[in-house]
Amino acid sequence: MGTVDESELRALLEDLTAGRVGTDEVVARLRRLPFADLGDALVDHHRALRQGLPEAVYGPGKTPEQCVRIVAELLRHGSGPVLLTRATEDQLKAVAAEHGPGLTEGRSVLYRPPGPTRAGHVLVVTAGTADGPVADECVLTLTAHGFELDRVDDIGVAGLHRLLAHLDQVTAADAVIVIAGMEGALASVIGGLSGAPVVAVPTSVGYGASLDGVTALLAMHASCASGVTVVGIDNGYGAACAVARML
Amino acid sequence: MGTVDESELRALLEDLTAGRVGTDEVVARLRRLPFADLGDALVDHHRALRQGLPEAVYGPGKTPEQCVRIVAELLRHGSGPVLLTRATEDQLKAVAAEHGPGLTEGRSVLYRPPGPTRAGHVLVVTAGTADGPVADECVLTLTAHGFELDRVDDIGVAGLHRLLAHLDQVTAADAVIVIAGMEGALASVIGGLSGAPVVAVPTSVGYGASLDGVTALLAMHASCASGVTVVGIDNGYGAACAVARML
Amino acid sequence: MGTVDESELRALLEDLTAGRVGTDEVVARLRRLPFADLGDALVDHHRALRQGLPEAVYGPGKTPEQCVRIVAELLRHGSGPVLLTRATEDQLKAVAAEHGPGLTEGRSVLYRPPGPTRAGHVLVVTAGTADGPVADECVLTLTAHGFELDRVDDIGVAGLHRLLAHLDQVTAADAVIVIAGMEGALASVIGGLSGAPVVAVPTSVGYGASLDGVTALLAMHASCASGVTVVGIDNGYGAACAVARML
Amino acid sequence: MGTVDESELRALLEDLTAGRVGTDEVVARLRRLPFADLGDALVDHHRALRQGLPEAVYGPGKTPEQCVRIVAELLRHGSGPVLLTRATEDQLKAVAAEHGPGLTEGRSVLYRPPGPTRAGHVLVVTAGTADGPVADECVLTLTAHGFELDRVDDIGVAGLHRLLAHLDQVTAADAVIVIAGMEGALASVIGGLSGAPVVAVPTSVGYGASLDGVTALLAMHASCASGVTVVGIDNGYGAACAVARML
Amino acid sequence: MGTVDESELRALLEDLTAGRVGTDEVVARLRRLPFADLGDALVDHHRALRQGLPEAVYGPGKTPEQCVRIVAELLRHGSGPVLLTRATEDQLKAVAAEHGPGLTEGRSVLYRPPGPTRAGHVLVVTAGTADGPVADECVLTLTAHGFELDRVDDIGVAGLHRLLAHLDQVTAADAVIVIAGMEGALASVIGGLSGAPVVAVPTSVGYGASLDGVTALLAMHASCASGVTVVGIDNGYGAACAVARML
Amino acid sequence: MGTVDESELRALLEDLTAGRVGTDEVVARLRRLPFADLGDALVDHHRALRQGLPEAVYGPGKTPEQCVRIVAELLRHGSGPVLLTRATEDQLKAVAAEHGPGLTEGRSVLYRPPGPTRAGHVLVVTAGTADGPVADECVLTLTAHGFELDRVDDIGVAGLHRLLAHLDQVTAADAVIVIAGMEGALASVIGGLSGAPVVAVPTSVGYGASLDGVTALLAMHASCASGVTVVGIDNGYGAACAVARML
Amino acid sequence: MGTVDESELRALLEDLTAGRVGTDEVVARLRRLPFADLGDALVDHHRALRQGLPEAVYGPGKTPEQCVRIVAELLRHGSGPVLLTRATEDQLKAVAAEHGPGLTEGRSVLYRPPGPTRAGHVLVVTAGTADGPVADECVLTLTAHGFELDRVDDIGVAGLHRLLAHLDQVTAADAVIVIAGMEGALASVIGGLSGAPVVAVPTSVGYGASLDGVTALLAMHASCASGVTVVGIDNGYGAACAVARML
Amino acid sequence: MGTVDESELRALLEDLTAGRVGTDEVVARLRRLPFADLGDALVDHHRALRQGLPEAVYGPGKTPEQCVRIVAELLRHGSGPVLLTRATEDQLKAVAAEHGPGLTEGRSVLYRPPGPTRAGHVLVVTAGTADGPVADECVLTLTAHGFELDRVDDIGVAGLHRLLAHLDQVTAADAVIVIAGMEGALASVIGGLSGAPVVAVPTSVGYGASLDGVTALLAMHASCASGVTVVGIDNGYGAACAVARML
Repeated sequence: MGTVDESELRALLEDLTAGRVGTDEVVARLRRLPFADLGDALVDHHRALRQGLPEAVYGPGKTPEQCVRIVAELLRHGSGPVLLTRATEDQLKAVAAEHGPGLTEGRSVLYRPPGPTRAGHVLVVTAGTADGPVADECVLTLTAHGFELDRVDDIGVAGLHRLLAHLDQVTAADAVIVIAGMEGALASVIGGLSGAPVVAVPTSVGYGASLDGVTALLAMHASCASGVTVVGIDNGYGAACAVARML
Repeated sequence: MGTVDESELRALLEDLTAGRVGTDEVVARLRRLPFADLGDALVDHHRALRQGLPEAVYGPGKTPEQCVRIVAELLRHGSGPVLLTRATEDQLKAVAAEHGPGLTEGRSVLYRPPGPTRAGHVLVVTAGTADGPVADECVLTLTAHGFELDRVDDIGVAGLHRLLAHLDQVTAADAVIVIAGMEGALASVIGGLSGAPVVAVPTSVGYGASLDGVTALLAMHASCASGVTVVGIDNGYGAACAVARML
Repeated sequence: MGTVDESELRALLEDLTAGRVGTDEVVARLRRLPFADLGDALVDHHRALRQGLPEAVYGPGKTPEQCVRIVAELLRHGSGPVLLTRATEDQLKAVAAEHGPGLTEGRSVLYRPPGPTRAGHVLVVTAGTADGPVADECVLTLTAHGFELDRVDDIGVAGLHRLLAHLDQVTAADAVIVIAGMEGALASVIGGLSGAPVVAVPTSVGYGASLDGVTALLAMHASCASGVTVVGIDNGYGAACAVARML
Repeated sequence: MGTVDESELRALLEDLTAGRVGTDEVVARLRRLPFADLGDALVDHHRALRQGLPEAVYGPGKTPEQCVRIVAELLRHGSGPVLLTRATEDQLKAVAAEHGPGLTEGRSVLYRPPGPTRAGHVLVVTAGTADGPVADECVLTLTAHGFELDRVDDIGVAGLHRLLAHLDQVTAADAVIVIAGMEGALASVIGGLSGAPVVAVPTSVGYGASLDGVTALLAMHASCASGVTVVGIDNGYGAACAVARML
Repeated sequence: MGTVDESELRALLEDLTAGRVGTDEVVARLRRLPFADLGDALVDHHRALRQGLPEAVYGPGKTPEQCVRIVAELLRHGSGPVLLTRATEDQLKAVAAEHGPGLTEGRSVLYRPPGPTRAGHVLVVTAGTADGPVADECVLTLTAHGFELDRVDDIGVAGLHRLLAHLDQVTAADAVIVIAGMEGALASVIGGLSGAPVVAVPTSVGYGASLDGVTALLAMHASCASGVTVVGIDNGYGAACAVARML
Repeated sequence: MGTVDESELRALLEDLTAGRVGTDEVVARLRRLPFADLGDALVDHHRALRQGLPEAVYGPGKTPEQCVRIVAELLRHGSGPVLLTRATEDQLKAVAAEHGPGLTEGRSVLYRPPGPTRAGHVLVVTAGTADGPVADECVLTLTAHGFELDRVDDIGVAGLHRLLAHLDQVTAADAVIVIAGMEGALASVIGGLSGAPVVAVPTSVGYGASLDGVTALLAMHASCASGVTVVGIDNGYGAACAVARML
Repeated sequence: MGTVDESELRALLEDLTAGRVGTDEVVARLRRLPFADLGDALVDHHRALRQGLPEAVYGPGKTPEQCVRIVAELLRHGSGPVLLTRATEDQLKAVAAEHGPGLTEGRSVLYRPPGPTRAGHVLVVTAGTADGPVADECVLTLTAHGFELDRVDDIGVAGLHRLLAHLDQVTAADAVIVIAGMEGALASVIGGLSGAPVVAVPTSVGYGASLDGVTALLAMHASCASGVTVVGIDNGYGAACAVARML
Repeated sequence: MGTVDESELRALLEDLTAGRVGTDEVVARLRRLPFADLGDALVDHHRALRQGLPEAVYGPGKTPEQCVRIVAELLRHGSGPVLLTRATEDQLKAVAAEHGPGLTEGRSVLYRPPGPTRAGHVLVVTAGTADGPVADECVLTLTAHGFELDRVDDIGVAGLHRLLAHLDQVTAADAVIVIAGMEGALASVIGGLSGAPVVAVPTSVGYGASLDGVTALLAMHASCASGVTVVGIDNGYGAACAVARML
């Protein structure tokens, strides 16, 4: 694909002013510009969008060696935070051996954590201890984005007192990420208590009628609390990114 | 099917004592008894089971005339309460024209309400006003069984204060029937607050991701509150019958 | 439920300072406070949460008369905007006859629109013209929250040029609500172009394999664009409320 | 969260009676009570609900060491029964090595069984021998609650004679727990034979069209026997807890 | 498609014997025979298969006039029974006006019923009265095939005594068709009682968790009774045809 | 349960004839008979039903030792064929070591095959070679029932010539069992070619849209060939039993 | 969005050659070109893609007046064929009254049919007469694209002779569109007989286990015939467009 | 099955010309031809259809030895390309040890690649790197068919610039195969950009709401781009075969 970069463009315009080419030919060549640079042009948009964003590596399906190599590249080519999520024990060990321990939360590890650089206090709550791994990923992604956050575990709605003991935290947060499997009811309750953005993460925790998280996903969408939004099953990373868009 | 009723049996035994038949033949004929009376024998069980139970007529699919006739037969052949549920306007009018107004709740009507004759105070709660018709059926069925009851509407979990304002009623009830559509989260919360039997009724209230009640049904089964039981979608009648078995 | 209101509380404390009751009894009575006022206490939270929020009436399942009456009550008891959504022709006519025309968008009508009082510019886009009714509800709800907004219809991904012609609007918006049925792919594309919050609304537009919006809902959750959040099927109202939480 | 505990409260009231603070300030601080102690207040409710309940540890996802430690803590901090369910061979061995054999039923083990302390005779029936593990968990949970019980295995409806041979037990029980996979028809039949509470447990037994228990769950809900309630798939523990709420 | 019919074939062979064409050419032309007559050849198979079968007209989607015309054609062109199933009131009236009343069962009507011409006694049972329309279609189709049959309604498994009162009929039948909606359990029970072919018909009777017959279909397939076969939802016609293949 | 067996019954009647008990008492005791012997009575029915049937052991979930022991018991206590199906390599080895090789087909083994003792020739066809294991189970079960049979593999409808090459076998068989995964179309085609009973077995062969056999099951039920019946997914055993009921 | 069209571009270049602007400024303005004209640029692609394509109006959800107006606009602004599909009786009448009868096929009407202008002979087959409306839409869309075509109805696989009677047509066609509901098996069979492109259209014909076309869609995807492609349920229009892409 | 082969046919005709048999008898025997050779006749059709097609071996479920043997047979009995797909490491090694390395792409290997012998340039695009294995199979199958092709990976719609950078390739290709998991949106976008045949392959890439590829499959069918066709989940082989039918 014959693209026209800036030096070429300047040369072309100089040829025009020098009379070496006519206006028609320049117009014809410039007409190709939109096609030619379409992709590159959008890159700018995307670059702006991604500016300052942490680079994330998704562990599943990669060999430990691939993880080590990709993390190495990201660390070398950028200066921002680099995050490895849902890694296996072997992946974590291999990466730690090469790049040092990093900031670890469950099966995720973060290099070059930026420190709290963004306004807004995020609260991450889980309905049960089994939702922990999803929260780990979420918490480390938020940290990678530069957020301060609190995390409260195991406040599912069947023990309402545990939830209400954290009422002040819930109402004070600038955004709440609710991580819940089984019936996912915590999202509805938090949505009714907080006026801030509430992002619900259904998890595949539970068995039988939980249908690997589909029940929680549907229930969160059928929620009676208006204005609660939902991300994909077990998608703690996505919930953190959603909050990063919001705050 | 040649059954052997009691008078035949006595005649047979008299024939035996009178020497008109031998023991072998009596044994042979008696051996057929279990087969012959199998059905009838079980009738006794079923009769015991049904003793004092209200007779219920399910409206859908019947003509107003059929409703009138069936109600008439049940009133004539028994002395207990007679309940017509999920009736159309036309069915209700036709039955009222023939049998008088009865005790009406939504689309259900009860004749010969027994008054509070059973121990135990039942609480019926709904998550939203749209769950009302299911609660109507449930309440009238409980009344037909002779229960005293309270009903509290519209205390869905997205407005936790409305639910907690009724906390004393919830904890005092001998059984709680929770009627909720959408995400059905109220069952989990009530299940965590009450130590009494909690029967959850998913309703087809809601749209889209509610999947006509399937989401609520699955969510109630995936509930994090142990010991909550569930009946079928919109089955207010069944929930009342379940409580009648329990108390 | 024997609640203890403020005048009672003051009387009780005066009795204590006057020596008419002992400390023990006051403590005992105060211990009941948390129970007694539990619901009321939370009301404050909810009131704060709801402060300034538009009151919304959901049309389906209500008679025109009920709509008229509820709108009347909300107009009388508050001073904020009052919104009627998903109304039938008859409901709209009845309400207009009583309360005047209001600000109408499709099947929704808004009384006392607040004018643009909130910071943040919202973009509402639809994939096809058939998604219009959901967008109508969404737009009027945003207006009721005091947002300025733009709306762009029919920029589904199969005609990428239509979408890209609005690229500047997409990248400039403080939040984008993407309303799409069928395969819901627009959410992924917009999510990749904008760094702002993107709320996706699956619609029941389409037939056959669209499964009444379930396909779009699942596809939006399986989206390859990170940080996009999703609300329920056809839930334009919920998407607007979600944005109101965010901005 | 600045809570106000009883000693603080007494000090506050003494300050009031001593004139060190005014009534207004006391009222202001007491107004915060409902919020502050909301969670703790509910704890009382929950404690009442849980009083005398066995503590249960759910094996899956825990290491043998975690099981040993949690069981140890529960044994040390309470005096009631402690139950470990769905344990692996390794978990069972580790716990037995530390705490002795306990009362074992399949993959569950119970420490400090309370003996039959509750009124009511419970019957646990299974449709097939493959439903056994769910029944094991159920039976041991009932024992932990202090129930006397009978268990009858393998009386699925395709061999009606086996079921009817136990007719007296079915009709005599104060509650029946029906554990069945495949098509779950046993619940309907038992529901028709017994007037007592019938709790149905769908199991994931079967293959193909059994859909891992979903078919049995749906069939039990679609059951033609009124008043039968259902718990989640394979949830023998939940069924026992449901009965504990009922009797 | 250049077919070669018999007269052509004879002419060809005569040309051969007359020496007007050589063997090679005849072989070449005959090689095309299999293709040419493929369809017609199979017609013979199909004709044998269909020999004596009743002609059936499926009502839904046809105008009354179409029904009248098709029935007229079938009566004119054949001499066997002609069956119209699932007809509307209007279709039935129009057909009766033209062709006389026929033998009617619910929404089906049969002309030229053959009388009992086939060996084998078929028993048709329904679980509930609501399954009646499917049984009507089934019974009339069996009659059209020349079977003698008995029909027993409303012997669902929740009232086992009603079923067992018909035990002799069940065990004596040469084939049993079990028609049941809701949870479809009757098929399992009958399958366990009879050694004859048992064809199960799931019906769309029931609501909510019955999922329009899908639950019954799945449950019948997950049945614990071996050798029971299943036809499609509400397919009373198909069940009768299946029995006609068997006996 | 106080049953009354025959010797007791004779003693009772002798007491009556001897005047040691009165008629009333005998009647009273006899009235209990139907209850008491209900189960045993049905045993006769079941025994008749099972007479001559092969005993089948289902391998999955059993240890090799359990298989050996159960087979041993069945061989010792009966004289008919004994069938072990879906056995693992280890189970097959263990059983062969103890009981000899038997008649083996894939993962099933049959002891004491009865030889062809039943009228009727059965044809077993598979759509693809991957359906083989289901056919193995089916073929050996048919053999255990005493049927003669033919088996034709890999005649799926995408290669119609392979199917039509066996047309004579298809039309000659007294019953056809069609085993097919993927889209299961073979059942429709065979159902149109044969007038004999056609039993369709959906298999879990295929991937993706095959949904583990659910697609084939649904497709077979939606089949345009009337009178085809269906058994559960991969249920070759059940299809053979169904044919045994038919012929 | 300030776009830069060709006249502006020429003016700009003339300003450059005239020295009225510097090269830097021209480069800066040209850099905006890719963004500015992104949408328009793609329009060219889309225009090429759409060149000569018939304009299609989808009837459902539009008033008869809207149909009349849209058809009028398309007829006025272009010179190609204009197609109205899935129209109601009222829509068809209104459009015919305004624009004349057109070329009608079922519920679709075509104005300015182009005549056979494209190479390639297309065969459209249906499995049953009930698939007719989908075939009507398909046939008229093919005609609008300028294809010659044959249509064969009612050759479902349960009557294989009907299909094979058309074997020559099937093997001769340049593309085959297979329209089938129920189990959709016809696509597999045709796919095995023809080496040309085969496009399968699942239809919502059938009931019960047909699941409104989902069964046929899944079955066609699980098909054992390689290289068959599938379009959406009832999407006759889409199948014709797919063929237009291919030939 | 008594077939009549050519030598028999010639003998028969000679008998006829020699007068040893009469015309009637020859006609009678020839009438059997269609039945007799039905299958063989179709073989010719199938052979034509398959002429020049690569032979494909599907790895899963086969032992390495079986793979080696089948590949050997195909290489020996034909002269065209032989393809082994979805092979395991062990299968690949075993085959390579016996037959040499071949042309390998991921888990597929091709022997006797034909070189670019077919007109038409195919573009294979993937939405993400995880779709690679499906693309490998697709690319090698296309190569086996003799196509020239380009492959572009990782141009999912969330990074539109990457897709647009390849716009010229997309619009220039004679056919595009779009391989995408998750929400599968790439198919809609490509379908809108290219006027050539677009074959979409949903992949099982993704987790949670991706439902193992079902979401992508449904979304592709619900696509707003007309004329896009779809093959089964992960079916890269099928997509290549579909293109081979088209070009």
